[in-house]
Amino acid sequence: MAVRVVLVGQGLVATHFAVGVERIKKGEVEPYGVPFAKYNMVYDIKDIEIVGSYDVDEEKVGKTLYDVAIKSVGDILPVPETLKSVTVRRGIHLGSLEGLPFRVKGLEDELGSTKAAIERLVEEWKQLQPDVIVEVATTEPAKAFNDVKALEEAIERDDRRRLSASHAYAYAAYLYAKETGRRVVFVNVIPSPIARDDAVAKLFEEAESLVLGDDGATGATPLTADLLEHLAERNRYVLSIAQFNIGGNTDFLALSVPERNKMKEETKSSIVKDILGYDAPHYIKPTGYLEPLGDKKFVSMHIWWKTFNGLEDELVVNMRINDSPALAGLLTDLVRIGKALVERGVKGTAYPVNAFFMKDPGPRGARNIARIRAYYQLLDYLREKGVIKA
Amino acid sequence: MAVRVVLVGQGLVATHFAVGVERIKKGEVEPYGVPFAKYNMVYDIKDIEIVGSYDVDEEKVGKTLYDVAIKSVGDILPVPETLKSVTVRRGIHLGSLEGLPFRVKGLEDELGSTKAAIERLVEEWKQLQPDVIVEVATTEPAKAFNDVKALEEAIERDDRRRLSASHAYAYAAYLYAKETGRRVVFVNVIPSPIARDDAVAKLFEEAESLVLGDDGATGATPLTADLLEHLAERNRYVLSIAQFNIGGNTDFLALSVPERNKMKEETKSSIVKDILGYDAPHYIKPTGYLEPLGDKKFVSMHIWWKTFNGLEDELVVNMRINDSPALAGLLTDLVRIGKALVERGVKGTAYPVNAFFMKDPGPRGARNIARIRAYYQLLDYLREKGVIKA
Amino acid sequence: MAVRVVLVGQGLVATHFAVGVERIKKGEVEPYGVPFAKYNMVYDIKDIEIVGSYDVDEEKVGKTLYDVAIKSVGDILPVPETLKSVTVRRGIHLGSLEGLPFRVKGLEDELGSTKAAIERLVEEWKQLQPDVIVEVATTEPAKAFNDVKALEEAIERDDRRRLSASHAYAYAAYLYAKETGRRVVFVNVIPSPIARDDAVAKLFEEAESLVLGDDGATGATPLTADLLEHLAERNRYVLSIAQFNIGGNTDFLALSVPERNKMKEETKSSIVKDILGYDAPHYIKPTGYLEPLGDKKFVSMHIWWKTFNGLEDELVVNMRINDSPALAGLLTDLVRIGKALVERGVKGTAYPVNAFFMKDPGPRGARNIARIRAYYQLLDYLREKGVIKA
Amino acid sequence: MAVRVVLVGQGLVATHFAVGVERIKKGEVEPYGVPFAKYNMVYDIKDIEIVGSYDVDEEKVGKTLYDVAIKSVGDILPVPETLKSVTVRRGIHLGSLEGLPFRVKGLEDELGSTKAAIERLVEEWKQLQPDVIVEVATTEPAKAFNDVKALEEAIERDDRRRLSASHAYAYAAYLYAKETGRRVVFVNVIPSPIARDDAVAKLFEEAESLVLGDDGATGATPLTADLLEHLAERNRYVLSIAQFNIGGNTDFLALSVPERNKMKEETKSSIVKDILGYDAPHYIKPTGYLEPLGDKKFVSMHIWWKTFNGLEDELVVNMRINDSPALAGLLTDLVRIGKALVERGVKGTAYPVNAFFMKDPGPRGARNIARIRAYYQLLDYLREKGVIKA
Repeated sequence: MAVRVVLVGQGLVATHFAVGVERIKKGEVEPYGVPFAKYNMVYDIKDIEIVGSYDVDEEKVGKTLYDVAIKSVGDILPVPETLKSVTVRRGIHLGSLEGLPFRVKGLEDELGSTKAAIERLVEEWKQLQPDVIVEVATTEPAKAFNDVKALEEAIERDDRRRLSASHAYAYAAYLYAKETGRRVVFVNVIPSPIARDDAVAKLFEEAESLVLGDDGATGATPLTADLLEHLAERNRYVLSIAQFNIGGNTDFLALSVPERNKMKEETKSSIVKDILGYDAPHYIKPTGYLEPLGDKKFVSMHIWWKTFNGLEDELVVNMRINDSPALAGLLTDLVRIGKALVERGVKGTAYPVNAFFMKDPGPRGARNIARIRAYYQLLDYLREKGVIKA
Repeated sequence: MAVRVVLVGQGLVATHFAVGVERIKKGEVEPYGVPFAKYNMVYDIKDIEIVGSYDVDEEKVGKTLYDVAIKSVGDILPVPETLKSVTVRRGIHLGSLEGLPFRVKGLEDELGSTKAAIERLVEEWKQLQPDVIVEVATTEPAKAFNDVKALEEAIERDDRRRLSASHAYAYAAYLYAKETGRRVVFVNVIPSPIARDDAVAKLFEEAESLVLGDDGATGATPLTADLLEHLAERNRYVLSIAQFNIGGNTDFLALSVPERNKMKEETKSSIVKDILGYDAPHYIKPTGYLEPLGDKKFVSMHIWWKTFNGLEDELVVNMRINDSPALAGLLTDLVRIGKALVERGVKGTAYPVNAFFMKDPGPRGARNIARIRAYYQLLDYLREKGVIKA
Repeated sequence: MAVRVVLVGQGLVATHFAVGVERIKKGEVEPYGVPFAKYNMVYDIKDIEIVGSYDVDEEKVGKTLYDVAIKSVGDILPVPETLKSVTVRRGIHLGSLEGLPFRVKGLEDELGSTKAAIERLVEEWKQLQPDVIVEVATTEPAKAFNDVKALEEAIERDDRRRLSASHAYAYAAYLYAKETGRRVVFVNVIPSPIARDDAVAKLFEEAESLVLGDDGATGATPLTADLLEHLAERNRYVLSIAQFNIGGNTDFLALSVPERNKMKEETKSSIVKDILGYDAPHYIKPTGYLEPLGDKKFVSMHIWWKTFNGLEDELVVNMRINDSPALAGLLTDLVRIGKALVERGVKGTAYPVNAFFMKDPGPRGARNIARIRAYYQLLDYLREKGVIKA
Repeated sequence: MAVRVVLVGQGLVATHFAVGVERIKKGEVEPYGVPFAKYNMVYDIKDIEIVGSYDVDEEKVGKTLYDVAIKSVGDILPVPETLKSVTVRRGIHLGSLEGLPFRVKGLEDELGSTKAAIERLVEEWKQLQPDVIVEVATTEPAKAFNDVKALEEAIERDDRRRLSASHAYAYAAYLYAKETGRRVVFVNVIPSPIARDDAVAKLFEEAESLVLGDDGATGATPLTADLLEHLAERNRYVLSIAQFNIGGNTDFLALSVPERNKMKEETKSSIVKDILGYDAPHYIKPTGYLEPLGDKKFVSMHIWWKTFNGLEDELVVNMRINDSPALAGLLTDLVRIGKALVERGVKGTAYPVNAFFMKDPGPRGARNIARIRAYYQLLDYLREKGVIKA
């Protein structure tokens, strides 16, 4: 049985995902970076099929995934020919790339309204028959609705200021589930509040479908979570935390726009109080854009604390991390887990999944816990649900 | 009810422990660095009473804990007057400081045999009535016996090559328990195999007593364990691990002697395979002695791995850590937990305690697990045993 | 012979300078951090006399240097009683602390115009008879005039938007020199363009006086300069440079205001092209404010380059640096060197001094060179001028 | 005019040198990592011709440089076909690879005596007509003779304990110069004392030839030198220096043998006192062998100091450095500079060259200075000698 996937935002993450999954299928590379690869899961990585892709960048729309991949990762990776069979379609923009140096055009511009664009997506998906829609576009400004009516009115009114592209996609996924009776999974790995939006969660629950999110936990944040847990367990009193991130991919470029940066800062900072139990002074944000670093960001972290007898210890962490492959590895599990869970009757959202995979786990108000704890809780959950087989 | 403690090895750790516990009792300092301080435990930190202390360094024997503390930490900490009431007694040497620049003399030299020395200790402890004996002397070369008879014969023969000071102390603790009917706890936080020695575990079981050990998990090792678990959970393939440690306290001086260094290297390296599941190439050892660093060691760690799509990530950790207070903080929990457990019928050794607190957890052959996992398992265990109250 | 000093901006740097100089005079501390302390200079550190101090913070005006020092560094340093003899006077504000959480009032507010304020300063200095005026206030937005008339008109018109406090002080110093015939030194260690302002340099030249500046080179920038020179000399091709700075003193707070940050970014970035010969992509700025770090900032730097055979190397530097004492140490040389030079007929500005001590060395258009080169050139210059004696 | 080069020790450095020089000649790669590449020198990189190569490893003797390069760097670099024209010849061993996991056989074993082996080399060189002999074998235990007679007697007696391979090669180079009248350059970039050996320097002086050495300054040592100079110039008082090096190439494997490590430690430590003026406590050594790191070593350095007002600052440096290409880049200059100098009458050794390029610059007793200083002094020297043209 296949896990049919539609990708929203054919940037580096989606491209690494597409390339990596095909290479794993061919036996060309090990599934490193895929957390649950070593477990016997209901769906194997080999079952993943990418059936559609959306973007608003004129450089990508109409190209095949193969062409897109050759251009963006062709210098560092072999690109499988199988990616020639999927072509990037025009998606919804709603200003999500505004202010960035791309020539873009959204489906809503082409068709005259957001509502028309959403309907078009639903029609296309009825053809493509995806099980999972993955939202992995560039970080955009977005706010939760928390009220189904408010969300639907914003679509009706075509309120492009209020509505984010990720909300429009999530709503389209809901409609698609509703109209086809198919149980759909919407995986949101960008900071927009989707799984944390009561409105979205409610709609998906109603459609017997599942939304997972928000903001995929890769890079420095999950490591920081585990480091803070390490300190909390020893009752060391954290004096302050500084965490810098700098990179050269589109996401870092996007985050040099203050409004987008703010989105990220919130999801990154919530871990401090959740894990330590007090709000230790901290500076945790994407800090800058430096083109030559490309997708391999540089992270620097400083943490110090009071230990026994009131003395002070100090920790510095420096990393070079491939940003996009890390998230692509998580997606490889998320699409498989999502489909298996929704088939087993899980609907709305699934906190145990979000708690491990996401920076800001839904539902609204849910707590961050150390990733190591979340991992073992998720393992139990997946076994109990029968997603991981004995 | 008091937790009566005898300290073996009045070095920096024992001194930080004595000073810190007294300062916490006086409300002068918060119990930072004491992992379970925030839980309501059967014994409070205020219940800890230091009733005896042993050393073989002629500079210390006969001095009060106050005098020793003033000399070693008086420049950085206020030393409580209450420490004037305990005087350092002459202990067993058995070559444990051989090759180091100290003028030493052991009880066995004074009394003519190790057996006589052990008997003297038992006599003294019958007066002091300790609940807990803490072995926290300098790292010494030592090998497990694993056979009660072999251990007892070595004592009988006065085989000073084969016998380590920690074994002699552990045996004395056993005899003291046996002869008084008191349930005794022996806490070994140095690398010598004591809780991992079947012989010792068996004797303590027989005496309804408890041995905890070995090698207190402070500094870089438990952090490395949690970092490796973090990587393992994401299925990142670790290419190599380098970990350097350099400091200026007696333990680093001792470890510049190859034979002792070997002891430490073993306890430190066992984590790699236990946690990753494969023996990633590694270099993990105390690396050097540099006097001005004092007790605040410098640690540097390099770890790199393969992630999704076969790309490589890299992590560097640098720390300045107060070595002795970290271990002293653990002791503050260990003596309380030990007494509470032995009173609740736990005997032999207690893996759930060792798994969190020790680098090389007994019993023999037991596995290292990530500290964060061990922490939550220990929490459950202590609640179940009634050591932590609701 | 004394070196009579007036301090402008009684913040942490001025306070460390005052405390440190007095402690060195008393023999209480070695002159570490004073670059030329080991040379036999015309003026000894013992010759420095602080005769006046200015600030606009209502918490400081009217207090003695002793009171100010007790409050700001009394927890980490002994404060000499001799500082009771100098009282902080009200100085010129001109918006230099605008937007920061201080209650401030400038002399120009009290007297009705900037011109009146400048005249008041000149009167006071005629009493205090300083040889050296040191501008060490918080970073402020400022632009060069480069034209004497434009500067004088701005004062005449009381154009408080255009005029910076540092320009007003520099002009007052010029007038004071002019009217008394005294050869005066104005040392500017903040980013405002003063020694780089042709207008200021010209006025000082006319008054046989000397202006040194701009922006004292402490912390990460001079180290970066030397690291880049190290790479350039090996013909390693730098791919990018990232440098983060975070701290908890007033200067970092001020720099969280974008307009001020800009001032700093410029002086910090100019080194790249000057030393490498090409403008390697870089991100070099004060990054954030984190109160618990206090005056001991955290710096993280990442540099990578192409080496022989086109392979890539990578360097990460992390530092904890006491920000204010570093600059105070430089001031201890600057005031002595300044007075000695002006007495030997040097006027306008002195590039060899600025090239070593300043981030953005005057005169306008002057180049940054590696500090190590600048050091030896300055040593030669000082010997040739007779400031350092054989 | 060609610079004809013979390589002694066809390991990674010699291989990177051969591959890199050929690639630069073909215009395939820029001469990054070649310090003086940007200057107009008497000999261009294009003039370098490798005419011979020696090794004792049975895996290499008889193979072409092309075959050796394919095997050792073929996975990371394109290997030029031109390297097929040089075949590795059997060289002198004298125990220089003893204890390492290689199957080796020296010319002295084949021919019965060291003297016979030296004579054979001289014969071969008369055919190959090298201008420069480069000693770049694995670090070996070696001691200076300082007396010509003692050196010659050791050869005569075939005293294989006393004589190092590098001494034998240097002596062969001397004989070759002597017998042919050719002015020869011997470049020693391994720690053996050759340029620092009075005996060798004297012989080369007599033969109007030039010896440069010892121990090429790449990696952490020259950077440490410049960092220490940076601190010294600011009169910061260094409290201690820790420097760890770990790598996976043959040199690190060799250095895990204590006797060889000692050789390296000495050349590395001499910088501290030379530059600071006092012997700050330090731990500076190659620390370990970790195979997966390969030729790209990991370096970690900790330095801390007292600054103004007695406060303490702290610096940590971490690097990943390609070890062999760095040295190969230096060789690209050394062979050209050496030939140009010897032709201009420079004989014995040349301190200005050694001071920049070597960790332990000859002649015996010469001082280490900061590399940045040494660079500018060398630049002046080369201009003055006409080696760098206006």
